[in-house]
Amino acid sequence: MAGREKCAVFGVRSDKPVFESIYYALYSMQHRGQEAAGIATYNSGINLHRDEGLVCEVFKGVFLEGNAGVGHVRYSTSGSSDVENAQPLVINYAKGSFALAHNGNLVNTEELKHQMESRGSVFITTSDTEIIAQLIAQEHLRLGDFIEGVKQAVNQLKGSYSLVILKGDNIIAVRDPWAFKPLVLGKLDDSFYVASESCALDAVNAELVRDVRAGEIVVIGDTLQSYRTRKERKCHCMFEYVYFARPDSVIDGVSVYGVRRKLGEILAREAPAEADLVVAVPDSGITAAIGYSRASGILYGEGLIKNRYFGRTFILPKQAERDVGVRIKLNPIRSEIKGKKLVLVDDSIVRGTTVKRIINLLRDFGAAEVHVRVSCPPVKNPCYYGIDMQTPEEFIAQKKGVEDIRKEIGADSLAYNTIDSLVEAIGLPAENLCLACVNGSYPIKEEQLKLNV
Amino acid sequence: MAGREKCAVFGVRSDKPVFESIYYALYSMQHRGQEAAGIATYNSGINLHRDEGLVCEVFKGVFLEGNAGVGHVRYSTSGSSDVENAQPLVINYAKGSFALAHNGNLVNTEELKHQMESRGSVFITTSDTEIIAQLIAQEHLRLGDFIEGVKQAVNQLKGSYSLVILKGDNIIAVRDPWAFKPLVLGKLDDSFYVASESCALDAVNAELVRDVRAGEIVVIGDTLQSYRTRKERKCHCMFEYVYFARPDSVIDGVSVYGVRRKLGEILAREAPAEADLVVAVPDSGITAAIGYSRASGILYGEGLIKNRYFGRTFILPKQAERDVGVRIKLNPIRSEIKGKKLVLVDDSIVRGTTVKRIINLLRDFGAAEVHVRVSCPPVKNPCYYGIDMQTPEEFIAQKKGVEDIRKEIGADSLAYNTIDSLVEAIGLPAENLCLACVNGSYPIKEEQLKLNV
Amino acid sequence: MAGREKCAVFGVRSDKPVFESIYYALYSMQHRGQEAAGIATYNSGINLHRDEGLVCEVFKGVFLEGNAGVGHVRYSTSGSSDVENAQPLVINYAKGSFALAHNGNLVNTEELKHQMESRGSVFITTSDTEIIAQLIAQEHLRLGDFIEGVKQAVNQLKGSYSLVILKGDNIIAVRDPWAFKPLVLGKLDDSFYVASESCALDAVNAELVRDVRAGEIVVIGDTLQSYRTRKERKCHCMFEYVYFARPDSVIDGVSVYGVRRKLGEILAREAPAEADLVVAVPDSGITAAIGYSRASGILYGEGLIKNRYFGRTFILPKQAERDVGVRIKLNPIRSEIKGKKLVLVDDSIVRGTTVKRIINLLRDFGAAEVHVRVSCPPVKNPCYYGIDMQTPEEFIAQKKGVEDIRKEIGADSLAYNTIDSLVEAIGLPAENLCLACVNGSYPIKEEQLKLNV
Amino acid sequence: MAGREKCAVFGVRSDKPVFESIYYALYSMQHRGQEAAGIATYNSGINLHRDEGLVCEVFKGVFLEGNAGVGHVRYSTSGSSDVENAQPLVINYAKGSFALAHNGNLVNTEELKHQMESRGSVFITTSDTEIIAQLIAQEHLRLGDFIEGVKQAVNQLKGSYSLVILKGDNIIAVRDPWAFKPLVLGKLDDSFYVASESCALDAVNAELVRDVRAGEIVVIGDTLQSYRTRKERKCHCMFEYVYFARPDSVIDGVSVYGVRRKLGEILAREAPAEADLVVAVPDSGITAAIGYSRASGILYGEGLIKNRYFGRTFILPKQAERDVGVRIKLNPIRSEIKGKKLVLVDDSIVRGTTVKRIINLLRDFGAAEVHVRVSCPPVKNPCYYGIDMQTPEEFIAQKKGVEDIRKEIGADSLAYNTIDSLVEAIGLPAENLCLACVNGSYPIKEEQLKLNV
Repeated sequence: MAGREKCAVFGVRSDKPVFESIYYALYSMQHRGQEAAGIATYNSGINLHRDEGLVCEVFKGVFLEGNAGVGHVRYSTSGSSDVENAQPLVINYAKGSFALAHNGNLVNTEELKHQMESRGSVFITTSDTEIIAQLIAQEHLRLGDFIEGVKQAVNQLKGSYSLVILKGDNIIAVRDPWAFKPLVLGKLDDSFYVASESCALDAVNAELVRDVRAGEIVVIGDTLQSYRTRKERKCHCMFEYVYFARPDSVIDGVSVYGVRRKLGEILAREAPAEADLVVAVPDSGITAAIGYSRASGILYGEGLIKNRYFGRTFILPKQAERDVGVRIKLNPIRSEIKGKKLVLVDDSIVRGTTVKRIINLLRDFGAAEVHVRVSCPPVKNPCYYGIDMQTPEEFIAQKKGVEDIRKEIGADSLAYNTIDSLVEAIGLPAENLCLACVNGSYPIKEEQLKLNV
Repeated sequence: MAGREKCAVFGVRSDKPVFESIYYALYSMQHRGQEAAGIATYNSGINLHRDEGLVCEVFKGVFLEGNAGVGHVRYSTSGSSDVENAQPLVINYAKGSFALAHNGNLVNTEELKHQMESRGSVFITTSDTEIIAQLIAQEHLRLGDFIEGVKQAVNQLKGSYSLVILKGDNIIAVRDPWAFKPLVLGKLDDSFYVASESCALDAVNAELVRDVRAGEIVVIGDTLQSYRTRKERKCHCMFEYVYFARPDSVIDGVSVYGVRRKLGEILAREAPAEADLVVAVPDSGITAAIGYSRASGILYGEGLIKNRYFGRTFILPKQAERDVGVRIKLNPIRSEIKGKKLVLVDDSIVRGTTVKRIINLLRDFGAAEVHVRVSCPPVKNPCYYGIDMQTPEEFIAQKKGVEDIRKEIGADSLAYNTIDSLVEAIGLPAENLCLACVNGSYPIKEEQLKLNV
Repeated sequence: MAGREKCAVFGVRSDKPVFESIYYALYSMQHRGQEAAGIATYNSGINLHRDEGLVCEVFKGVFLEGNAGVGHVRYSTSGSSDVENAQPLVINYAKGSFALAHNGNLVNTEELKHQMESRGSVFITTSDTEIIAQLIAQEHLRLGDFIEGVKQAVNQLKGSYSLVILKGDNIIAVRDPWAFKPLVLGKLDDSFYVASESCALDAVNAELVRDVRAGEIVVIGDTLQSYRTRKERKCHCMFEYVYFARPDSVIDGVSVYGVRRKLGEILAREAPAEADLVVAVPDSGITAAIGYSRASGILYGEGLIKNRYFGRTFILPKQAERDVGVRIKLNPIRSEIKGKKLVLVDDSIVRGTTVKRIINLLRDFGAAEVHVRVSCPPVKNPCYYGIDMQTPEEFIAQKKGVEDIRKEIGADSLAYNTIDSLVEAIGLPAENLCLACVNGSYPIKEEQLKLNV
Repeated sequence: MAGREKCAVFGVRSDKPVFESIYYALYSMQHRGQEAAGIATYNSGINLHRDEGLVCEVFKGVFLEGNAGVGHVRYSTSGSSDVENAQPLVINYAKGSFALAHNGNLVNTEELKHQMESRGSVFITTSDTEIIAQLIAQEHLRLGDFIEGVKQAVNQLKGSYSLVILKGDNIIAVRDPWAFKPLVLGKLDDSFYVASESCALDAVNAELVRDVRAGEIVVIGDTLQSYRTRKERKCHCMFEYVYFARPDSVIDGVSVYGVRRKLGEILAREAPAEADLVVAVPDSGITAAIGYSRASGILYGEGLIKNRYFGRTFILPKQAERDVGVRIKLNPIRSEIKGKKLVLVDDSIVRGTTVKRIINLLRDFGAAEVHVRVSCPPVKNPCYYGIDMQTPEEFIAQKKGVEDIRKEIGADSLAYNTIDSLVEAIGLPAENLCLACVNGSYPIKEEQLKLNV
């Protein structure tokens, strides 16, 4: 899964300098990538600044001129952190130059690379992004028109891609025909925006106009134009709703917060528990826990406090001997849970080790019973479209049934939402969702093959 | 208010190396001070490491030998950030040396300094801590016994002080006779601990034995010994419960989380509102909001999402022109609040500017009504004991009544808890609480004078 | 002059890990580039680490496995410091991958880029290095053999290039047919080395075997093989001898130190001065000053002391108001120069401003006379092959004769070496030297045209 | 030898802001201390900034207001690098406050500390500087007059001390009665300066007025006043001339450069060698080598090139296996030394290991003979006054005679200057020099005792 990219993109064209807007927008999407950040603006030529680090670190003391620009934050995946894979990528060729930022993961990378290399292409980075950029350049050269080139280039891509391109002072936004990854269009006065998440539009005070459509190319120039690439079955990634996106974002017309709350409500209905208190694994389980509480009538409370300083900055002290476990990150509130029967709500279980430790901790602090409820159905299959999950062998749900998992993690009861419930909570037709990680039905057939090997 | 110290202290004596425990304990109390951190251990002599920065930054790659030690984190107050004020402070004198860490603020600093200077004392730092340390050394020299010296020294102090001292491999913990600041005693096997908050005991897996008592000196040596200094009216700082401490801590026998939840419950009873949803100003208003929801029966929901990357790392971009306001920190969830009548719960209102912006933001996102409910009674008076509040002129409640404040912040209704309700929520006798910031009744009379000037 | 590269390259193939050798070698050639450093090694695949900074900064805590590798240090030229231009560059294409490090500057960049872009090439960086790498890949694909590809690729290059390539665990070294830039071959036991300067061989304890020849391709594999590209007139850069290289290096069989000393000796013979003391502008004028002293019989002494902490680390203090001038860098020794007639020897004069300030300083400290002697003939023409000189308008010698320059800088007398003397000091045939910057005779005719425009 | 301080001090009083002057002055004295730097200025109160690092690192982005100020750079001695020992030290006491910077080392530290502690003093740092500052404060309090207090305080000090004190906007400079450490007075317009070395006066364009006298207190206020403390035999440290000071400084009326050159000249006369070339161990042996060459008539040349990037920044690469030795720092010029008989001049030999490696290196590069000549007589005794030499056991000259040392280091011949020659070169009466490290005659008798124990 080299070259995997899990990120956010942003683009804006305005009649005013755009650097500050891009900064705030990337800052608001920092949860989608903390490894690296980059901004390219156009001001007679392309200005580029990008580096490893958080947005506020990378752009300390930086300012780029220009009334149009694109930005990117990158997710930390181990190993491939070479700075040359940072984005946006700027490419120079016979027809000039452009900057490209990409969120997604191609599944025909090897095939494309092989084809392109056999035609003589060379690659300086190991990223999907360079493949896409070179394809666009080649097609532009072949066809003579940039938008036509983009169209023909992306028609060769399989997998997920939400792209923003800076060509001159125009912004071109592209969403793959499956619409795996979110991409929204926003507006404020005469400025137009594209962003991975609508929370970035809020950050720049812009209004959410609509989602970029599956297989759509939006060109933000003096006017706004829309083109279509090819048509596929829409397959929005359900994991954006369940875990990845910010709860205050709206994706494909659906409030992320609303989905999470409904997941909790349905769980309460489908998998009730006799309990005194609903508690969440913070922060990702909070909204579902609130939903569970509402629907079940069981009180909601904070049973676990998260250390707000945990995260990127935590470093194990020198000569540390003990297993730090979850204790340095989460601490139970004894008075709230002692002697209580708890419903513990989390968004998902992958390996099961963390939830096991949390249950132990809650029992240490006096919890009488711990009933685990999970918003997301059991995750069993790898994602090929950009969500960085474990390798299949690590999915506890692939090898064990629910009862065995319950025993393994030490819960008094365990229930997951069903796939139908998940679809109900999202409220979009099941055929318009990518549910591959929970049902193995991959929208692009190549993955099915990989899985059967 | 120079020399103000708002911090956490920690001490441990064990039969094993203590560095790692102190590291985790300080890490768990990082919310009490992000400016600087320090650890001193004893291992035939005193080893000291301290610097500006977060615990994980200051102690990257550091290890100090020793089976006894003390630690400190310091709060960021503007201006006085000179590194020489860092703690623990190590002092050398005719009877050897000791390390001292201090949480609190003396009110007779000037008087003590004047007396000591007139007796010939010189000061290298500008901190209260050096005054205390020198007094202890002087009294030790005068009386010949260290504990006797500590006793006589602290008897001259007025104000708040929770001290941990490392003298040889013994730990001495002292709490002022008013018991303004928290200080707890913990135990794990043969190790004994003192900490500002009980969450630090949880972090090192220790059991909370009891609070250090008002005016008590606890000596952790081969045996545990207890001494009394003088007696004063106990005056636990109510703001620790309302805002400052971690919710998972227990202070003077009272769960912080429980107090906050009850504050919300009482508010619901005393200041009901006709509303569709209870939302909190995250993170400090969450627990009270849950309480309000429980008692009122109005649904609790997350209406505002906090950017988890906001904080120490946020830096305004270069050439930033607009007022960033609360928008970069908090974002409303439109789907949750649109058209709704909201109860907005916060822990306190000081200047009123932030809550005003939040109300505006909520209305921008479609809130029909915003009823503000505040856990803490109106704050009108400065704190002289270590809580870094605004200057009196900045307290909106000092110049305006509730109705005027409501108009100023643009709320549909506004209510605070009463002082009686606050006392009820804490559950300790009113005379054992310091309520000076809300009722002007200062436990030490000097402050009363200052206020009348 | 975009894409200008003034650097050092290094390559080694051994039966032992090579990282440490490359580190020391780059460290010894740090004078050739302080902006960035990079190392690529081969160990079943290519490992790459590169970043901005000094060698010791970039490789702090880094180790790369592998028994073959190449390295690079880059000169600081303003503006083009984008990290994507860092070297070595790793390229992936249909026939695998290789790493390339380049010292030099092409003069047909635009033409090559135009041709390649018209054939569909795209470029991710703005460096000559990517052009060379892509050409090699294309020719390899076309011809099927890597070495043949290198040969055909470099035959299309005009300008200076000393290349080291890591292909599998083989090292390929290429020197342009003019042999502008130095490149030497070394050996220690079964390890073979290539380096920009022989001082790097000394640093790794290796023996200087010989220079890589003009237009030669040396392949260091299981055996050592040599190939020829095309033949041109050899044109070794004279400025390496005069200023750029370390004095302890030997280039094309000629000791740099020896050349500099002879330049001083000839100057003494050709441009004698009545003086009491010969002093140098440190560090670059020292060797010539010693030569001048020897040949003239006038005593050599240190008249100016250089602050050893000056350099990359010097930052003008905040709110600095005065012109720091040379004073913070150089300080005269009053006792040595007071009342003395001085010969001041420097390696070259470009704009004349620095030497003017030094003369003023010497007079302030009591020098009776200052006779300036310059090793290098007047520099009048720009370098297109990689030496970062001023733009032609800034050459004082282009607009003024020697007497006018003397007046301008305030010297009592001024003399330069003649071009003949320079050639004599180097000891190679004049036709085998590039003297373009002093005589305008460019080895590659395109430059002649540029100059006449 | 705890508390050892080897540093530079600077002070200035002007009618203009002084920060920039202090910055340049400290920068020019960076060779005296690279560990830490600090500046205190007076502007209604004392402003202080100090930290670990080079001057340019510590004061990046810093500016301190005020027309009077003092500065300090500190030498890196292993272990005692605690930031609380940084200077200037600011002290507060009944009569106000002052800042103190100190260069030197007291020999009665323990005695003073004991006396002061027995009178009740406590110490926050482990530095001599705090002892001096507290003594001054105590005497000021006792006597009522600051200058009188300084006089009485320093009269109790034994050892070396050059002090600059900032009291209000006055500068007080004090030099110990032995005048071990240099201290000069300078002037520019209406500004007065004190500095450890005269090169700092050059850096700020000031004129050297005179040395501060042994046992003198100079007060720079509205007028310049001078006071005397007690009288002792003047004992200027000879090592400042031989090695420690910058060659462009003038100390006690004697040019450092001149001394070094004469040391070489006398060596040539007293210890002639049959040789082809005189080479220096750079940088410290250069001036003496020039002198040797002049007096002997043997040519001077650079035989060893020093890597200009060696120093604080050099870090051994990860997993380094070999002994780096001198090779990474120094490289011989083969063409210059091959087959030659060399005179190798160094300033001093302490352990003998470095010169041994250099001789090996020179022989590896073809030197026919290596005759070592050393400016400084054999160093046999420790310094108690602030020069950080090895412990006595490490002095090769303490255990071995000249012939044995010659064999040990592998030289063809070896000669040192005699003590008489050293005195002759300096040109001051022998009784006015501290020669303890070479003749064991300590100016303060306590040291004699220590040595005999």
